[in-house]
Amino acid sequence: MTSYKIRPAEKNDMHEVLLLIKELAIFEKEPEAVEITVEDLQRDGFGKEKLFFCFVAEVEGQIQGMALAYFRYSTWKGKTVHLEDLVVRQKFRGIGLGAGLYKKVMQFAKNEGVKRVEWVVLDWNLGAIEFYKKTGASILKNWHLAQFDEKTLSEFLKQE
Amino acid sequence: MTSYKIRPAEKNDMHEVLLLIKELAIFEKEPEAVEITVEDLQRDGFGKEKLFFCFVAEVEGQIQGMALAYFRYSTWKGKTVHLEDLVVRQKFRGIGLGAGLYKKVMQFAKNEGVKRVEWVVLDWNLGAIEFYKKTGASILKNWHLAQFDEKTLSEFLKQE
Repeated sequence: MTSYKIRPAEKNDMHEVLLLIKELAIFEKEPEAVEITVEDLQRDGFGKEKLFFCFVAEVEGQIQGMALAYFRYSTWKGKTVHLEDLVVRQKFRGIGLGAGLYKKVMQFAKNEGVKRVEWVVLDWNLGAIEFYKKTGASILKNWHLAQFDEKTLSEFLKQE
Repeated sequence: MTSYKIRPAEKNDMHEVLLLIKELAIFEKEPEAVEITVEDLQRDGFGKEKLFFCFVAEVEGQIQGMALAYFRYSTWKGKTVHLEDLVVRQKFRGIGLGAGLYKKVMQFAKNEGVKRVEWVVLDWNLGAIEFYKKTGASILKNWHLAQFDEKTLSEFLKQE
């Protein structure tokens, strides 16, 4: 069994974290969607205004996986945690890094005393859905996501 | 045409805001799900750590609608706005309060320079979906929501 270590990410890890973000975007079939930079991640995760927190999984001192999350707010439950990304480099899948990162985020959420942890999953990602269900998570299929991107937001606001 | 006014919510408005949160939960068929209190909302929206922002719509000095939102983080786009709730008291629907609150949140997001605004909608809420589409928003049907609540989170963390 390959041994791995999970620890909170540091500012200097953001280069590696961005590579993993891009790997996940390719898996999700949107490789062009990633606009963020290392500098953005360093400022937003480790600056004055902390917009997320992040854990990394290391194998032999190299980062091979990461989980990135932040707080949200439910008008039913109060403060919640949202797991935005969980990704393990392809060659290192199947040896427990994903499950370890998942558990780390859930333990963090529990320690923070939140009443809900939420994330999204693509409907064709059956392996992930199966894993989440096995851990006891609920999968809600009756909600759609609605979005403005920068362009459609601007266009909407130009209308009278 | 009934005239209305939209303004940022104040701490003292949270009693009215909670009534609207409960009205929305009834509409969404989960009246028992609301655990939050006026004190929670006052602390979380107006305390040291601001977990959300909120606008209210007034008709003749009475609050008849509200929109509550907060910042999230996209690993593709950076800082985003999430619209958590938008609700208008039933008797006051159809006179523009909802559209006014929606526009106010979008204008706020634009002013903040975010690259995405996101929210969720129940698949049977066809009126809302139609409205969002007409404004130019995208509706994504290929994502499921996954959740731990307090109980399932604790149970998961007890497993070995």
